[in-house]
Amino acid sequence: MDGQCIPNWLKKRANLTPDRMALYFSGESYTFKELYIESLNAAAKIAGLKIDTGGYIAVLLRNHPDTVFILLALQMLGIKTVILNNRLSAQELSWQIGDSCAAAVITEESFSSTAVEITKKMDETAVITKEQLFERQDGQAQIVDEFSLADVCTIMYTSGTTGHPKGVLQTYGNHWWSAIGSALNLGLMDKDCWLCAVPLFHISGYSILIRSIIYGIPIVLHEKFVAKRVLHDIAKFNVTIMSVVSVMLVNLIDGLNEHALPASFRCMLLGGGPAPLPLLEKCRKKSIPVYQTYGMTETASQIVTLSPDYSLTKLGSAGKPLFLSQLKIVNFLGNEAGSKEEGEIFVKGPNVTPGYLHHDTVIDHNFGEGWLSTGDIGFLDDEGFLYVLDRRSDLIISGGENIYPAEIEGILLSHFEVSDAGVIGINDSKWGQVPAAFVVRKSGSEVTEDDLAAYCKQKLAGYKVPKQINFVDELPRNAANKLLRRDLPKLVRKGNERD
Amino acid sequence: MDGQCIPNWLKKRANLTPDRMALYFSGESYTFKELYIESLNAAAKIAGLKIDTGGYIAVLLRNHPDTVFILLALQMLGIKTVILNNRLSAQELSWQIGDSCAAAVITEESFSSTAVEITKKMDETAVITKEQLFERQDGQAQIVDEFSLADVCTIMYTSGTTGHPKGVLQTYGNHWWSAIGSALNLGLMDKDCWLCAVPLFHISGYSILIRSIIYGIPIVLHEKFVAKRVLHDIAKFNVTIMSVVSVMLVNLIDGLNEHALPASFRCMLLGGGPAPLPLLEKCRKKSIPVYQTYGMTETASQIVTLSPDYSLTKLGSAGKPLFLSQLKIVNFLGNEAGSKEEGEIFVKGPNVTPGYLHHDTVIDHNFGEGWLSTGDIGFLDDEGFLYVLDRRSDLIISGGENIYPAEIEGILLSHFEVSDAGVIGINDSKWGQVPAAFVVRKSGSEVTEDDLAAYCKQKLAGYKVPKQINFVDELPRNAANKLLRRDLPKLVRKGNERD
Repeated sequence: MDGQCIPNWLKKRANLTPDRMALYFSGESYTFKELYIESLNAAAKIAGLKIDTGGYIAVLLRNHPDTVFILLALQMLGIKTVILNNRLSAQELSWQIGDSCAAAVITEESFSSTAVEITKKMDETAVITKEQLFERQDGQAQIVDEFSLADVCTIMYTSGTTGHPKGVLQTYGNHWWSAIGSALNLGLMDKDCWLCAVPLFHISGYSILIRSIIYGIPIVLHEKFVAKRVLHDIAKFNVTIMSVVSVMLVNLIDGLNEHALPASFRCMLLGGGPAPLPLLEKCRKKSIPVYQTYGMTETASQIVTLSPDYSLTKLGSAGKPLFLSQLKIVNFLGNEAGSKEEGEIFVKGPNVTPGYLHHDTVIDHNFGEGWLSTGDIGFLDDEGFLYVLDRRSDLIISGGENIYPAEIEGILLSHFEVSDAGVIGINDSKWGQVPAAFVVRKSGSEVTEDDLAAYCKQKLAGYKVPKQINFVDELPRNAANKLLRRDLPKLVRKGNERD
Repeated sequence: MDGQCIPNWLKKRANLTPDRMALYFSGESYTFKELYIESLNAAAKIAGLKIDTGGYIAVLLRNHPDTVFILLALQMLGIKTVILNNRLSAQELSWQIGDSCAAAVITEESFSSTAVEITKKMDETAVITKEQLFERQDGQAQIVDEFSLADVCTIMYTSGTTGHPKGVLQTYGNHWWSAIGSALNLGLMDKDCWLCAVPLFHISGYSILIRSIIYGIPIVLHEKFVAKRVLHDIAKFNVTIMSVVSVMLVNLIDGLNEHALPASFRCMLLGGGPAPLPLLEKCRKKSIPVYQTYGMTETASQIVTLSPDYSLTKLGSAGKPLFLSQLKIVNFLGNEAGSKEEGEIFVKGPNVTPGYLHHDTVIDHNFGEGWLSTGDIGFLDDEGFLYVLDRRSDLIISGGENIYPAEIEGILLSHFEVSDAGVIGINDSKWGQVPAAFVVRKSGSEVTEDDLAAYCKQKLAGYKVPKQINFVDELPRNAANKLLRRDLPKLVRKGNERD
C-alpha cells in the first residue's frame, strides 16, 4: 500500500460521470460535477484558515450537504480530518480536540452552545462555524491531484478498555479498500442508490460517502433517522441499499404495514452489534434482504458479512471475511483455534487501521505482520463462518453506539463522594443494551442517584449516562483487586429504571 | 503497492462462494470449489518439477480447462509464468524461453512438433507436455496464503521498435487493479458471465481469468473464436460480457441474422485497435452495446474505455481513463499538450507494468513518478475524451495481434540474398491491416517472393509473414540513413497479393 497513489477520487469521478446524480438531501440535489464544484468552493474557504497540508482540522457537524462538501474539501486539501461525534459532551469533545492537536474546529450554529464551551477550553485552536466560514474570503486552495493510499485521511475516536478514547487512524487506503471489498461482496449495479440515515461522523456514514464517489452512485442523505421519511425516500429515489443498526430496522419494519419496499431494494446492511433472531425472522417474512455485518472503526466499516442466502442456514453467524480480508481465532493458549473452538477474533486486511494516534501500532506481530486483535470473542464453524459470542467482554452496544464501561466508571470515580464504581450493559427492548452503574458511596455520603446522573450528564454523551445507578456496599473484585464485571448482573435492580 | 498483500485469490474465492459456477468449456463445467481442487491437483504435479518459488516456468498451451488449472496452479505455487503466444514459430518461442531463463516449459501434445524443435534448441530447460505432467507423481506443493501485489505474476512478450521482443512484467497488483478498474467502470451484476474466445496467452484472455476469480463470476471458455458457437453459447449461458477485436465483431454481426443477442447481454468489450465507423454503426443498429477500449500488454488490459452512452457523441474516441488511471498527452516540445493538441500518449496507474524483464524501468520520470510512454499518438478533447490517432507510428495491428515491422525486417535482412528491407501495414478488409515488405536484393540475386515468404514462415508466426513482398531498387532513407517507412506506401503494389 505504501507509496501507491490513486487519482483524487472526487475530481476523477466528476470527470468520468459529471452528470450522474451524487447527492439528494431534503429538497436539494447535486450531480457529481456540482458536488465537485461545491467542494472546491468549501476548499477555497478552508484554505483561508491557512492550515498546513498534512495538518489536522476537527469537524463537529450534522448530516447535511455542507458537511459533505467540507469533508470532501478537507480530503482535496490534504488535511487530516478529526471527525467528532456530535452526541458527545463539550468535555469529551475538548479532550479529543486537544488530543488530536487539531489546529481548528469547524462546527455549525446549531451547536453554538457546545462551541462556546469548547472555545473556553481551547487555547490555540480556532473554533469557527460553517456559517462564518462560508462568509469568509477565499484562500488559495492547493487541490491535490493524487491521494497516497498510505496517508491518513480521517481520525475517529473510540473509547478503549482503558477509559480514555483513542484516535483511530484511517488512511485513504483503508477507505478505498473497504469500498472495494464491499463492492466485490454486494456487487455494483447500474441503478444503485444508497440511503444514509446513519451519522457521517461514524464510519458507517462516512464509508457511504466514500463508496458513492468511488462507485459513482447517489446518496440519499437524511439528517437523522425517521422511519417514515426513510420509507418515503426509499420509494421516491428507488434506493437499493441502506445501512442500518438493529433499532432502525425494528422501526422500519413497524412502518412497513403501510409502505412496501420496492422490488429494486436489494440490501439492508445491518451493523453495530448482533441482530436478535426474532428481528431476522420478521425481515425474512417481509422479504427484506438483510446482510448482517461485523466491523468496527478500526476496520473502516464491515470486514465480515453474511449474505441473505445464508441467513437461515447460518442463523446467528456474522458471515465470512470479505474478499480482501482475513480472520483468525486465537485460543486462550495463544494458538490458532480449531473449528468451533472459541477464542479472540483477529483480523487482517488493507482496510485495517495502521494504528491509533500517538500510540504504538495496534498490529499484533505474534501471528505475522498485520493482524489486529479485536478483543472480541468468537469461533469459526466447519465452513469458516464466524460466530461472534461477545464483543470485547465489557463493551456495551446501545443503538449502534459503542459504550465502554471504563469511561463511565472514570467519570463516576471523579465525583468526590464516590469511592468505587462499576458499569455493565443491561438488556433494553429498544436500544439492545443500556449502561447500568454500581456505586459505593464514601462513608457518610448521601449523594443520590439523581445527583450522580446529573453529574454524568455534564460530562458524557446522553446515551452513556447510566440508565440506573445502584448503590452497593462493595463491588465484586478478585484477589488482584480487578473488578469482576461479570458478577455485577446479579446486583441489577429489576424495573423502575431512571427516566 | 509495495508490501501490500491480499489473500490467495482462488483459495479465497473457493471459500467465499464454493458452489458458484466458475468455468464452462465444451461439455465440462466447474464450480469455484472444483476449480480450486483441480488447480491444487495441477500444483501438486508441477511441484514435482522442483522449480523454486519465485522461479520461472513458460507455458505453451491452448484455451482449455487444463490451461486454466495450470495457470492458477503456478500462481498458487508462487512461480512466475512466462506465457507464450502459441502462434509464434519455434524460433521465436525458443528466443523468448531463453531470454526469460524459464526452468521448464509446459506444453501439450497438440504442439508436439514445435516442442521437439524447442527441445533441440534448449540445453537446460525441461520441456514437458501437460499429458506427461498429469501422469507424474505428486510433489510437495507449498501453496501460498497471500499474494504480494508487488510480485511478478506473469510475463508476456511484446516486440518493441527495436525488433527484439521484450518480456512485460505483470505483477499481481497490475492484474488486481486492472480487474477493479474494469469493475468500477462496467459494474458487477448478480448474474454476470464472461465469454472468452480470445487467447488466454494474451492479456485480453488472461485478464478475464483474473476477473472471474475476483468477481466470482463464470467464464464460458472457447478454444478459439467461431462466431456460430459464440452466438450459441451467449444464449445458452446467458453471457453478459464478451471481449472481442474488430474482426470477431464483424463475424458476429454477420451471424446475428439468425440469432439475436439476449436482453441480458450488456457489454461487448472491444479492444485491439481502433474500430471502423461502419462497424460501430452496424452495432448500434443491432442494439449491441459496444465499449471501445484502449490498452496494451503493459497496462494489463484496457486503461481507457468509451461507454456506449458516448459512442455516438464521441464517435472515434477511445473514451476516458478508468477510475484508477491517468493520462497525459505530451506534445512534440516535451510539454503537456493543451486540449485538442496532438502528442504522445502517457499513462499512469497501478495497472501499469513496473518494466520489462532484464531492462531498466519503462517509467518516464520527466513527468513525475510512474508515467509510461506508450509511443502512441493522440489528443484529448475539451471534455477529456481520448482520440488515438496512431498506434506507435510503425505498429501494425492485424486481427488484434500487434506486429512490429522491425522484427520482420530483421528476419528479411538475415537472408543472405537481401541487402535492405522495410515493412509497413497495408489495409485489409478482413484483418484491418496486414504486413507488406519492400526488399532490395543483393546484386545478381534472383531470390523470389515465394522464397522469401517461405523463409519468413520458418522463423515467424504466420500472421507476421508479409502478405506481399515487393522488390525495389532502393528504400527511401533520410540523410541519417533512417528508413522512412511513411514513404513506403507509395510503393505498394495494387491487387495480386500473395496467398
